[in-house]
Amino acid sequence: MTEQSAEQGRDALVIGVDYGTLSGRAVVVRVSDGAELGSAEYAYPHAVMDRALTASADEPLPPDWALQVPADYVDVLKNAVPDALRAAGADPADVIGIGTDFTACTMIPTLADGTPLNELERFADRPHAYVKLWKHHAAQSHADRINELARERGEAWLPRYGGLISSEWQFAKALQVLEEDREIYDAMDRWVEAADWIVWQLGGSYVRDASTVGYKGIYQDGAHPGTDFLGALNPDFATFVSDKLDAPIAPLGARAGRLTAEAAAWTGLTEGIAVAVGNVDAHVTLPAANAVDPGQMVLIMGTSTCHVVNSESLHEVPGMCGVVDGGVITGLYGYEAGQSGVGDIFAWFVSTGVPPAYVAQAEAAGQSIHAYLTDLAAAQPIGGHGLVALDWHSGNRSVLVDHELSGLTLGQTLTTRPEDIYRALLESTAFGTKTIVDTFAASGVPITELVVAGGLLRNRFLMQMYADVTGLPLSTIVSEQGPALGSAIHAAVAAGAYPDVRAAAAVMGGRVAGAYTPDPEATAAYAELYAEYAALHDYFGRGGNDVMRRLKKIRRRALGSAAAEGDVAAPDLEPQGDLV
Amino acid sequence: MTEQSAEQGRDALVIGVDYGTLSGRAVVVRVSDGAELGSAEYAYPHAVMDRALTASADEPLPPDWALQVPADYVDVLKNAVPDALRAAGADPADVIGIGTDFTACTMIPTLADGTPLNELERFADRPHAYVKLWKHHAAQSHADRINELARERGEAWLPRYGGLISSEWQFAKALQVLEEDREIYDAMDRWVEAADWIVWQLGGSYVRDASTVGYKGIYQDGAHPGTDFLGALNPDFATFVSDKLDAPIAPLGARAGRLTAEAAAWTGLTEGIAVAVGNVDAHVTLPAANAVDPGQMVLIMGTSTCHVVNSESLHEVPGMCGVVDGGVITGLYGYEAGQSGVGDIFAWFVSTGVPPAYVAQAEAAGQSIHAYLTDLAAAQPIGGHGLVALDWHSGNRSVLVDHELSGLTLGQTLTTRPEDIYRALLESTAFGTKTIVDTFAASGVPITELVVAGGLLRNRFLMQMYADVTGLPLSTIVSEQGPALGSAIHAAVAAGAYPDVRAAAAVMGGRVAGAYTPDPEATAAYAELYAEYAALHDYFGRGGNDVMRRLKKIRRRALGSAAAEGDVAAPDLEPQGDLV
Repeated sequence: MTEQSAEQGRDALVIGVDYGTLSGRAVVVRVSDGAELGSAEYAYPHAVMDRALTASADEPLPPDWALQVPADYVDVLKNAVPDALRAAGADPADVIGIGTDFTACTMIPTLADGTPLNELERFADRPHAYVKLWKHHAAQSHADRINELARERGEAWLPRYGGLISSEWQFAKALQVLEEDREIYDAMDRWVEAADWIVWQLGGSYVRDASTVGYKGIYQDGAHPGTDFLGALNPDFATFVSDKLDAPIAPLGARAGRLTAEAAAWTGLTEGIAVAVGNVDAHVTLPAANAVDPGQMVLIMGTSTCHVVNSESLHEVPGMCGVVDGGVITGLYGYEAGQSGVGDIFAWFVSTGVPPAYVAQAEAAGQSIHAYLTDLAAAQPIGGHGLVALDWHSGNRSVLVDHELSGLTLGQTLTTRPEDIYRALLESTAFGTKTIVDTFAASGVPITELVVAGGLLRNRFLMQMYADVTGLPLSTIVSEQGPALGSAIHAAVAAGAYPDVRAAAAVMGGRVAGAYTPDPEATAAYAELYAEYAALHDYFGRGGNDVMRRLKKIRRRALGSAAAEGDVAAPDLEPQGDLV
Repeated sequence: MTEQSAEQGRDALVIGVDYGTLSGRAVVVRVSDGAELGSAEYAYPHAVMDRALTASADEPLPPDWALQVPADYVDVLKNAVPDALRAAGADPADVIGIGTDFTACTMIPTLADGTPLNELERFADRPHAYVKLWKHHAAQSHADRINELARERGEAWLPRYGGLISSEWQFAKALQVLEEDREIYDAMDRWVEAADWIVWQLGGSYVRDASTVGYKGIYQDGAHPGTDFLGALNPDFATFVSDKLDAPIAPLGARAGRLTAEAAAWTGLTEGIAVAVGNVDAHVTLPAANAVDPGQMVLIMGTSTCHVVNSESLHEVPGMCGVVDGGVITGLYGYEAGQSGVGDIFAWFVSTGVPPAYVAQAEAAGQSIHAYLTDLAAAQPIGGHGLVALDWHSGNRSVLVDHELSGLTLGQTLTTRPEDIYRALLESTAFGTKTIVDTFAASGVPITELVVAGGLLRNRFLMQMYADVTGLPLSTIVSEQGPALGSAIHAAVAAGAYPDVRAAAAVMGGRVAGAYTPDPEATAAYAELYAEYAALHDYFGRGGNDVMRRLKKIRRRALGSAAAEGDVAAPDLEPQGDLV
């Protein structure tokens, strides 16, 4: 840290903006100590368009689509940033930088100047002209072709993604545009990550961040997939990289530009302050928790869990989501893995599987049903419920990378109670994390500490369970708005207040280190249950019995044909025949 | 039928008494056509003693015990029979016979004159002096030893019981008495099936029925297990058969005796009328449904399901409960199999797994929650839920004969609804029955018709499902008190009104033949799901993965040690450690 920047930092402020799935949140942070002085949230007016193109013709959308409107992101700058400044009682003149993080992979087709195609009148009613949100899953067939061809050709980049490219990512989504709306594809000069597009709007220049270009853009060892590969997918796709992706790549924490006059007017901030390079919501959480060192695996635990960890060396971990040089922090390899369903499995159970008496008792006790069930579950000895479950209700992201898998509960008897199943589901997600931790360790990326961010860290029983199951100390992030704080940290670095993200994180970020320590007896008891989980995991997940895949196929066929027949009426079940 | 007996039958009446687990039910039946003129029920004053010896010292009982009081059975004669006669408006003088059926194997230790040992003052506080009800399961270790030794020695009778003797049966329960209360064992002159004891009280003589002696008393090819075998179990057990079991064996439908003066006083009936040989509740249901022919498999469907079918020839069916010559109807081999959990699995799910909104909607619709869920489930196409379940919440009686197995539900996603799971559970029991039907067919006992008795026949959707899944026509019994009617049929035969049970059943019993016929399209669709059930059945039930057995062991150990520690308190989960 230079003396000048330290001086500057004393009273200086930065803004972090976290773009989520349904809203954006801005937070005003003091550079000198990371204090969060005020924040504000702004919900996207068009939210997620997944049934109809509500922004225009209200035309219905096919299944698995998920679109957004770019102008909603700008509205966050116009509303949440000034609101956060007011909430903080801050003088905008003290703000020296702004940083952002975004959902990813979220893609916008634009003209050469960054204008989103949906803002051109002639394309306003064309679904492919809009933002394809991360959870737009309609490019699965395109992803399947990419994977098949990559395996055939033995593409060196494939193992960097655990052996599978996602339908959510840049290339699958782009191929869908090419093959489903050629006019849009031809009109788009750039295929831009929303993370970079918002930075472009703020700072005036298009710079790709080192994170999404690697994790979502298949950029490895200095190159995207080649023209041969892309041409084999579709001849017209051969020059996709040079035609649509080309733009400079900048390291995380660097300054992408300086705030434009227009963006200064939107936000009330000073023209010319630093705008940080774009970033990903999960990744900025690491500096926010001051957990950027090798061995510290950060779990962002909400409806799903994202696992992020840095390492000094490059390893190919089976079933990981990706490894990117400088993908999380410059100078280290950043690894990502995930569990597709965690909190949403608990929520599903609570809303569909808990009887009235329990709901009434929780209410009488003034507890949420989650807290009530957790208390009952926590009173049991390990293994007392006699159950084991697989946490695949939303499929398996890591390490099996198979969304055709589904949930399982085994061991029910007539004495099995709701809290037993609830606990088995909690355990199944802890076992899922242990599977990931063990796979990383076996692949040369040892994990020494879990660091939890996200809403689920409030469940202390669950936290202790994760520590016990993995046998690792478990720390919890201090900030309640981790991603926004992480973006603010990047803003401080981009503004020159700290020499790098690690140094800024040490001062501005924080975690409760070792908030939970594993109990060796509990670890041993869970190991016995984990062995059962692991055996079922491999049997149903690695080809021993593909019943889950088959049931999904049967289901699709059954529901498809039922829908084709119109309303499903109950069969006529009047008894027939003669009295004998 | 002789002319005289036909004459006699015209205005004659008979009484059937069905002894269940908690009460006895008497019904007055017209001999000429089986019309049920009136009935009455009487609940046993001591019900089931499974926690404490409430009849005496109120001393706590160990787990898995289930005792009853013999005098309660006599009280049924004193109350339910006169009440039924009054309800029927019948003249007791018109009653020409009485028949009974009982739960089995339910055993009473008595003196040589039939006095139950618990009625001796010196034994009144001794648990082993009381009736061991069918569901007394505390002789499992004794049954295990019997099975192990029988396998070692290759005893010829073992395959007649599907390869496994139950802890519920005569020998295991007797061995428990011998080894746990030697004084009671020595004092007991007879070890009597309750089915035969009640007949002894009515008719004055001790006659063993051909059914329980075979199914529960390991009587095959004219002999019980030999002294060598019994002596190897325990030297003092060698002469158990000649010491404690010896008594004449009579065929079903025969007259065991004539009503004694004492029993006439209890019941209000005429001294000297025919008393039929004892029988088993499930078995008398076959004549009540007029379904005694080979190929007609009768399913008594309630909390569990009992499957009974006759055949002209002797076959060894893997995993059946037993085959007995004349065990159901004289002249045919009677086969029994079972599913340990059926209706009680549905009841368990409804009471523990259905959310308030569903319960409220069922109430608003004026439906039971079962009916409400059934309607929702019936509206789905086959396979639309994407689930498959194993119906082993109470273990598996046939064909695996393994009570350490447990339930499983597979295929859950975040869109799985309560009616989906409910339907999967219904299907799992139908698949369990198909497994039994197919095993019988493969062993030389083909099944051509299902005949359903018991409470579950009211669920028409379930009945159609059983027909579709098995591909068999399904008939339903007409009588709502099948066992009592079946006992009355045996009384009519014992009284000479019909030449045999088959002839009486043809007139007095009845079913709606082919009430449900399988829909070939549905049968084909279910076959796909059944293939998945069968694969999981074999994997978890035949040694592919013994996870269910291991989880039960872990559970017992966990709960045992937790109980030993006293109250189970939630661990202290306060976060600890330093803010970094």
